[in-house]
Amino acid sequence: MLENRRFLLKRRPEGEPVPADFDLVSEPVPEAPAGGFVVRNYFASLDPAQRGWMDDVPSYMPPIALGDAVRATTVGRVHTSDNADFKPGDWVMGLNALEDYSPVMPGGFTSAIDVSLVDSPSRFLSAMGAVGLTAYFGLLEVAKPQEGETLLVSGAAGAVGSVVGQIGKIKGCRTIGIAGGQDKCRKLTERYGYDVAIDYKGKDVDTLAEEIRAAAPDGVNMIFENVGGDVMDAELMNLAKHARIVLCGLISEYNAPEKLGVRNLWQVLAQEATIHGYLISAYVDRFAEGGAQMAEWMAAGKVVMDEDIQEGLENAYPAFMRLFSGANTGKLVLKIAE
Amino acid sequence: MLENRRFLLKRRPEGEPVPADFDLVSEPVPEAPAGGFVVRNYFASLDPAQRGWMDDVPSYMPPIALGDAVRATTVGRVHTSDNADFKPGDWVMGLNALEDYSPVMPGGFTSAIDVSLVDSPSRFLSAMGAVGLTAYFGLLEVAKPQEGETLLVSGAAGAVGSVVGQIGKIKGCRTIGIAGGQDKCRKLTERYGYDVAIDYKGKDVDTLAEEIRAAAPDGVNMIFENVGGDVMDAELMNLAKHARIVLCGLISEYNAPEKLGVRNLWQVLAQEATIHGYLISAYVDRFAEGGAQMAEWMAAGKVVMDEDIQEGLENAYPAFMRLFSGANTGKLVLKIAE
Repeated sequence: MLENRRFLLKRRPEGEPVPADFDLVSEPVPEAPAGGFVVRNYFASLDPAQRGWMDDVPSYMPPIALGDAVRATTVGRVHTSDNADFKPGDWVMGLNALEDYSPVMPGGFTSAIDVSLVDSPSRFLSAMGAVGLTAYFGLLEVAKPQEGETLLVSGAAGAVGSVVGQIGKIKGCRTIGIAGGQDKCRKLTERYGYDVAIDYKGKDVDTLAEEIRAAAPDGVNMIFENVGGDVMDAELMNLAKHARIVLCGLISEYNAPEKLGVRNLWQVLAQEATIHGYLISAYVDRFAEGGAQMAEWMAAGKVVMDEDIQEGLENAYPAFMRLFSGANTGKLVLKIAE
Repeated sequence: MLENRRFLLKRRPEGEPVPADFDLVSEPVPEAPAGGFVVRNYFASLDPAQRGWMDDVPSYMPPIALGDAVRATTVGRVHTSDNADFKPGDWVMGLNALEDYSPVMPGGFTSAIDVSLVDSPSRFLSAMGAVGLTAYFGLLEVAKPQEGETLLVSGAAGAVGSVVGQIGKIKGCRTIGIAGGQDKCRKLTERYGYDVAIDYKGKDVDTLAEEIRAAAPDGVNMIFENVGGDVMDAELMNLAKHARIVLCGLISEYNAPEKLGVRNLWQVLAQEATIHGYLISAYVDRFAEGGAQMAEWMAAGKVVMDEDIQEGLENAYPAFMRLFSGANTGKLVLKIAE
């Protein structure tokens, strides 16, 4: 009999998640709900946002209920179906969970995908999925880059940040990326086309701010913020007048029991800058358009996106923690089935 | 012989200014510069922004040089002139300094004013000046209130905040004001027309956030931020989707050697809110339009603005410190001459 392994949230993490916050259980494979279907998950996206969903606090989505499988975007194939539009074997993607099989209702976040467009279905969780499109719409629709402007990206070696920098170059911007460690910084300039790479590791706010100033003496016109905390404080000391800040993530804060916060908000005032809280969900109805452009850029070799593929539901915890240890470069994906 | 008393910045304050940071000296009255004139200052505006100008940090204006008189917007009369457009006795206002006489070049921030419009020339430093117009343009042009929306104002009993609330009511908004102490809170509802007054004194972030939630269960559509720190953190826990935050001041931080910062910026992301760094200088060319509207509302009794008039250059230090002790309500003005 098929088993359905499920990676459950057992209790709410305090600060950094520990193994005891989770449980891996085996249950029977669910039946297709009336009018819906069951997905066999092949790949699951591991994202910083999932850490936020584990807290019992108001956010853009309800918290993951205790005892539920950890919510995740997955790519998979229809296993059993009570819906003529979704036949067994069809590839789909949607907001499901870290489990072998997910019962889903059609519509909303679960949609058919054309895997013939890509070399691996996991692409729909990276460049063609929410991550690539988070970079795409955040930079193009929120920051609105103009040719010749300077773009500063934190978490620049990460899944979103690496793509933001590459799209920035396509749009004629000077790009400065901040990442942790020499290996990542080398990747920024050699693989993602950043004009300048800055290593934040072991530097206080003042030192980091000075390095940014050296790279952008006239200030930065745009910040694509993935990190927050000290890194953001250093960035804020280097705003050009009317800078636009896309607030996409605050990964340095997600596990912090005592949030460090941002202390240089007064620079936003002084430089008449704007901070835009940004969620990709606002652009869901334009995913096809963005995905087509990303596919074209990838085919032309203008955008590369690395995937960090970890194997097996039994490794869900250590795989997830790679997001916070700085171990991963590129989009972190958990492979659930072959 | 006339003397020119000047309130000088002797050294840069560390945290809260102390008397030894300043010096009151007497110098000869300056000569009118070629093509310019000398102003006899009557009233000077005391504003939190002056504290920022005392620090040696990048901002929207150069720091006040050590040994210079403390920069201030003043209202006064032309004393001597080398410019036919500005005759002795004419009333003018401009960016001058805390001193009896200021040598100035015409144009830029120094312009003629019609004191017949008002009951006291000091009005050009309050309702008709940068303070009233900071409220006016910040609310109307940046926050863009819609009828029926909820507006939250911190520092609501202050010069800017009291006017923001009143204009919010004119525009059909529900207004919630945050201030320190029962007297100020009573003033919010009884004098400035706020629908709800919340006293932040002695409350931690969670308690304050709960009180705001009770007053605005569906969240606030706009925040007019004058305070920052803990107060802002509590506000950020109560954003409605797509809330607009006008970042006008961060008075709780100006004297803090260790800035507390804002820890709940993630709510800006989660609610897709926007923070707009706002300086009144962007609207200088529309001051006449705004001043006319403010004068009309004041004449109709729709907007009241309190002035806290302190007397004498010799009291410049204690007068200035009223901004930070919470002692003042209404626009703080230093009267320099009768």
